Amino acid sequence: MVKVSVIGATGYAGAELMRLLVSHKEVNIVHAVSKSFAGKQLSAVYPSFLSSDYLLEEMDIGIIAKDSDIVFTCLPHGASASVVPALLEGGARVIDLSGDFRYRDAKVYETWYKQTHTAQEWLGKSVYGMPEIYREHIAATALVGNPGCYTTCGILALYPLLKNGVIEPKGIIIDAKSGASGAGRSEKLANAFCEVNESVKAYGVGTHRHTSEIEQELTFAANDTVVVSFTPHLLPIKRGIISTIYATPKDGIVETDIKEAYTMYKDEPFVQVFDGALPEIKHVTGSNNCAIGYVLDKRAGCLVIVSCLDNLIKGAAGQAVQNMNILCGFDETEGLNLTGWYL
Amino acid sequence: MVKVSVIGATGYAGAELMRLLVSHKEVNIVHAVSKSFAGKQLSAVYPSFLSSDYLLEEMDIGIIAKDSDIVFTCLPHGASASVVPALLEGGARVIDLSGDFRYRDAKVYETWYKQTHTAQEWLGKSVYGMPEIYREHIAATALVGNPGCYTTCGILALYPLLKNGVIEPKGIIIDAKSGASGAGRSEKLANAFCEVNESVKAYGVGTHRHTSEIEQELTFAANDTVVVSFTPHLLPIKRGIISTIYATPKDGIVETDIKEAYTMYKDEPFVQVFDGALPEIKHVTGSNNCAIGYVLDKRAGCLVIVSCLDNLIKGAAGQAVQNMNILCGFDETEGLNLTGWYL
Amino acid sequence: MVKVSVIGATGYAGAELMRLLVSHKEVNIVHAVSKSFAGKQLSAVYPSFLSSDYLLEEMDIGIIAKDSDIVFTCLPHGASASVVPALLEGGARVIDLSGDFRYRDAKVYETWYKQTHTAQEWLGKSVYGMPEIYREHIAATALVGNPGCYTTCGILALYPLLKNGVIEPKGIIIDAKSGASGAGRSEKLANAFCEVNESVKAYGVGTHRHTSEIEQELTFAANDTVVVSFTPHLLPIKRGIISTIYATPKDGIVETDIKEAYTMYKDEPFVQVFDGALPEIKHVTGSNNCAIGYVLDKRAGCLVIVSCLDNLIKGAAGQAVQNMNILCGFDETEGLNLTGWYL
Amino acid sequence: MVKVSVIGATGYAGAELMRLLVSHKEVNIVHAVSKSFAGKQLSAVYPSFLSSDYLLEEMDIGIIAKDSDIVFTCLPHGASASVVPALLEGGARVIDLSGDFRYRDAKVYETWYKQTHTAQEWLGKSVYGMPEIYREHIAATALVGNPGCYTTCGILALYPLLKNGVIEPKGIIIDAKSGASGAGRSEKLANAFCEVNESVKAYGVGTHRHTSEIEQELTFAANDTVVVSFTPHLLPIKRGIISTIYATPKDGIVETDIKEAYTMYKDEPFVQVFDGALPEIKHVTGSNNCAIGYVLDKRAGCLVIVSCLDNLIKGAAGQAVQNMNILCGFDETEGLNLTGWYL
Repeated sequence: MVKVSVIGATGYAGAELMRLLVSHKEVNIVHAVSKSFAGKQLSAVYPSFLSSDYLLEEMDIGIIAKDSDIVFTCLPHGASASVVPALLEGGARVIDLSGDFRYRDAKVYETWYKQTHTAQEWLGKSVYGMPEIYREHIAATALVGNPGCYTTCGILALYPLLKNGVIEPKGIIIDAKSGASGAGRSEKLANAFCEVNESVKAYGVGTHRHTSEIEQELTFAANDTVVVSFTPHLLPIKRGIISTIYATPKDGIVETDIKEAYTMYKDEPFVQVFDGALPEIKHVTGSNNCAIGYVLDKRAGCLVIVSCLDNLIKGAAGQAVQNMNILCGFDETEGLNLTGWYL
Repeated sequence: MVKVSVIGATGYAGAELMRLLVSHKEVNIVHAVSKSFAGKQLSAVYPSFLSSDYLLEEMDIGIIAKDSDIVFTCLPHGASASVVPALLEGGARVIDLSGDFRYRDAKVYETWYKQTHTAQEWLGKSVYGMPEIYREHIAATALVGNPGCYTTCGILALYPLLKNGVIEPKGIIIDAKSGASGAGRSEKLANAFCEVNESVKAYGVGTHRHTSEIEQELTFAANDTVVVSFTPHLLPIKRGIISTIYATPKDGIVETDIKEAYTMYKDEPFVQVFDGALPEIKHVTGSNNCAIGYVLDKRAGCLVIVSCLDNLIKGAAGQAVQNMNILCGFDETEGLNLTGWYL
Repeated sequence: MVKVSVIGATGYAGAELMRLLVSHKEVNIVHAVSKSFAGKQLSAVYPSFLSSDYLLEEMDIGIIAKDSDIVFTCLPHGASASVVPALLEGGARVIDLSGDFRYRDAKVYETWYKQTHTAQEWLGKSVYGMPEIYREHIAATALVGNPGCYTTCGILALYPLLKNGVIEPKGIIIDAKSGASGAGRSEKLANAFCEVNESVKAYGVGTHRHTSEIEQELTFAANDTVVVSFTPHLLPIKRGIISTIYATPKDGIVETDIKEAYTMYKDEPFVQVFDGALPEIKHVTGSNNCAIGYVLDKRAGCLVIVSCLDNLIKGAAGQAVQNMNILCGFDETEGLNLTGWYL
Repeated sequence: MVKVSVIGATGYAGAELMRLLVSHKEVNIVHAVSKSFAGKQLSAVYPSFLSSDYLLEEMDIGIIAKDSDIVFTCLPHGASASVVPALLEGGARVIDLSGDFRYRDAKVYETWYKQTHTAQEWLGKSVYGMPEIYREHIAATALVGNPGCYTTCGILALYPLLKNGVIEPKGIIIDAKSGASGAGRSEKLANAFCEVNESVKAYGVGTHRHTSEIEQELTFAANDTVVVSFTPHLLPIKRGIISTIYATPKDGIVETDIKEAYTMYKDEPFVQVFDGALPEIKHVTGSNNCAIGYVLDKRAGCLVIVSCLDNLIKGAAGQAVQNMNILCGFDETEGLNLTGWYL
């Protein structure tokens, strides 16, 4: 049994992580930390945990590092950078769900997050936690920068196409739509039910931080600078992301080339490439799957790719557990064999 | 490993049952039957099953009975009565999710369902599948009449109070609200998104079939005729039921008497009695739990009880798995240790 | 043209009132007051007002009273009591949408609102603004206490039945369900989309303030003390209330007696009594209508009444406009001839 | 008073048209035709019409043509083509809400609708009913082809930019998301609440008929062949469309060029160009407005335009009324001065 702790256990991603961990056979949760609710039971915040409850604690980095093999940090960006080094130095391995350890270049982080990175010395040692690309590096690291939700959805859809030179690296457009849990558990008016239901909005056009994370990985894939136009939208649903992606196929590309490129995922447990159909959010909700489909619109000279995932699972907590499984040498699907809910 | 078959695997309850069974450690699914989709893969109907797929078959009762230890019948009422006897005679044990085997008195069934019962000889042998009341009988039977969704929610809330004489058996009112999956997977206009969203309606007032099922069990509990006023409502949500129940406390009853009555559930794995709080649907969605809370309104002389469950799990497929666990001697919580989703 | 002002124009009820007033032919809006957004345009808060915009102002009671024939106060309870007297003394007539001027007895207010009433001298002069009951008094008053949303829905359903002695005054149960706009425009976590959608909860059981308002009016109707058990629920919809009401018919009462009692509304423009059918929320959303239907369940000895209204219109802003029409001698339906949206 | 008839009054667009017409001061509705519900009252289908009811009739083209100045045909494509000629020959002017009279070239229609056009002789006489482009032609015609919902949303956003040469005519991408009422009132499983809520899907990628309608008008605007990549999505909302549009700005284009292009709408009553902000669906729901905003993402070399409208109003019934107002010489905003609901 591996001893794990969760720092930030009562945000939406943290609570989802707790939900996955309590049914993971190889895990013993030793500390569940919540700044806002320390001293209460987790079930006092989320009554759904009544039958699998934990006492929420204050954050004591020294104790947590000492007691834990793996620590998940589910903190706002910036806050993670301020505690992760001490956890690592204390001997724990860390899977960080913020944006703080996803970048190779601190300047990119500082440009998009508009703040100084306070733990730059760790950027070179952290591994970007996307198992489909970096599985072997993840297995060998002490620090995983767990990818963002939009970014996972976008990168998994585009990586094989750029890697295999099937699409042009220029002019890629990602029109992404996310459920409201992506905005976290907060009291903002913009997230109130009456402001969200029966409406949809675009936001952060041209400025959303996940753009830079997507570009970093796609640039590696293409071995050429990739600049994407990324537009996120807020949907009146609780969970799930659907990204509709527009790319220009290279000259002479036909459907079998695309299909061939996606064979990169043929042994992946959590990427489903649909054959001649498009995924919908309800096909993946509740699972750790990212489902991908595509239409080659020859008339318009455009390849349209649709990818879906559950932002709290493959887009956050599920991928974090997948990374833990890799770090610990468990079966990568342990605790993640989740058939989607559909309903 | 027990060999199980599901007849009616592509309705909402049947598909939910498939979802639970694929992650049940003691079960081998030998036949998944669908009249509408025989010959297709389950994932062609529900793409969420892509990673845990089954071929859908035509119904061949003889083969199913021969191959299966347990058969779940998820058919419309009437249709179940026409196939269950042959399954039993063929040697299988049956858990029926329709209303056909829930009644002790065929006349009650015929009055409320407005049709002749074609397998009356089996009513005396079937056991009402509510483990909290009939666990020992379930363990010993070959035929379980798995309870309805509204009925489970209502009976679990009221049974201990009537059994312990805490409330009057007269004048009980159950105001129940259900998500749209309770209406099944059908093409009715009344279930269309535009007709359901941003609205709520009452339906079947005074005539809903579950009334009779509730009254049957509560009459046993009270050892006195119980007649309830039961009003179901359609909610713009996918899953979940909340029942708000109004009863008259007997003279002199105080809160501790109510609390004491509910200690009937103190060892139950799937009934949660809230202490000084009321459950909400999101507290139980995704789990096999029924959560119960109450307020004794002394001013109005009224006990208000709120009970919630997931209509597809504790109200259908989850309870069916719980019954199978009892029938087969498995740990009753096997495959049902599901922390609710909350989100 | 009548000169009107709205104090509190940017809450949900205030904004809905502005929406109705801008298309009212007899009205000139002279001041739109918002504490939070003074100095901005209304369209900066609600872009839906781009084509019918107003400058939001600070509250200056003296100027408002002087400039206005009618002032609508859409303020929290307590806040209304602190400004309404000055408006009245300044010569304006006031329609107050808070709970502050709905009660005849300050003690009832103070018991249920748990605060001192600071303008008790005006309670005797205010008229309860339910036109179906107090039309003539409203026409002659300077101060209208505009009824609450739940209360309008409950009182309109029950008043004729109690007035005509068709039901027992004891044991009335009101199970009410409301859209989230009823909670106002606020940043509470409990109103966040992810906390509200796909769930329903009961709240304020036995303690909701509207109970006392309902009891006040129904006691007048029955000429006997009426105590109701009132349970509100939060629905995952934006607007609309459905109340399911349970009452005991008096001995010998038959359906025609109930129908006869409801003829009280036969000339009412905004009360629709359904004949042999039950209203749904979508039948009234967007209109000033309260729709009422009923089922006499003889088997259970229970009369089930269902009433629906749009909480922001007949439950707040629409009823306020109706009261203004009466105060000013306009056609009572002016500005309120709104066919419901359905969609 | 103008005498109007509505053929197809009980579909979602037809019912919305009836709702708008009953409050239009210059209109007398002489026939409301419904094939499915002839002989019933409109309120029997939509109880929201209880206070503004009409008898639904069988379709008798001769009588309708004779009795009506204006006939609105809200029929499926193909069905319109089969009745509109007779209405015109009978002396009525016709506003057709189907796709049958929107095209100049029957071949384009036949390619995209995959059926023969049976009234091709009228295509040359019909006018495309987008007032912002064809106001003068509409005023002079007897037959208006009322535009589609997606098309109105897309064309209004792009027309000024192409007309003014601000963007490249190549590579335009329209990612459109619509509420479920766009699919009409039908019993399809795909429109069931449980299939739509908490999910989003793309459909008709590269093949949706509205593509051809958009391209026809944008080609006129650009005076150059415009081919767009158009992807519609189904949203879990009742009404409203948001289109996120991606275009390449021509070399040297700056924000003021875009602003300047949009001054084309400066006197338009129903097009709102947001200055430095983006519209959301809730800003326009319930109104006849199309709201447009944009972000020039210089980094990515992409102009992102967001346009929103209510698919049943500016996208169907409202625009039809606007066209009627023009045909009849009424104030163009008569009956359409609708402040959006927001809630």
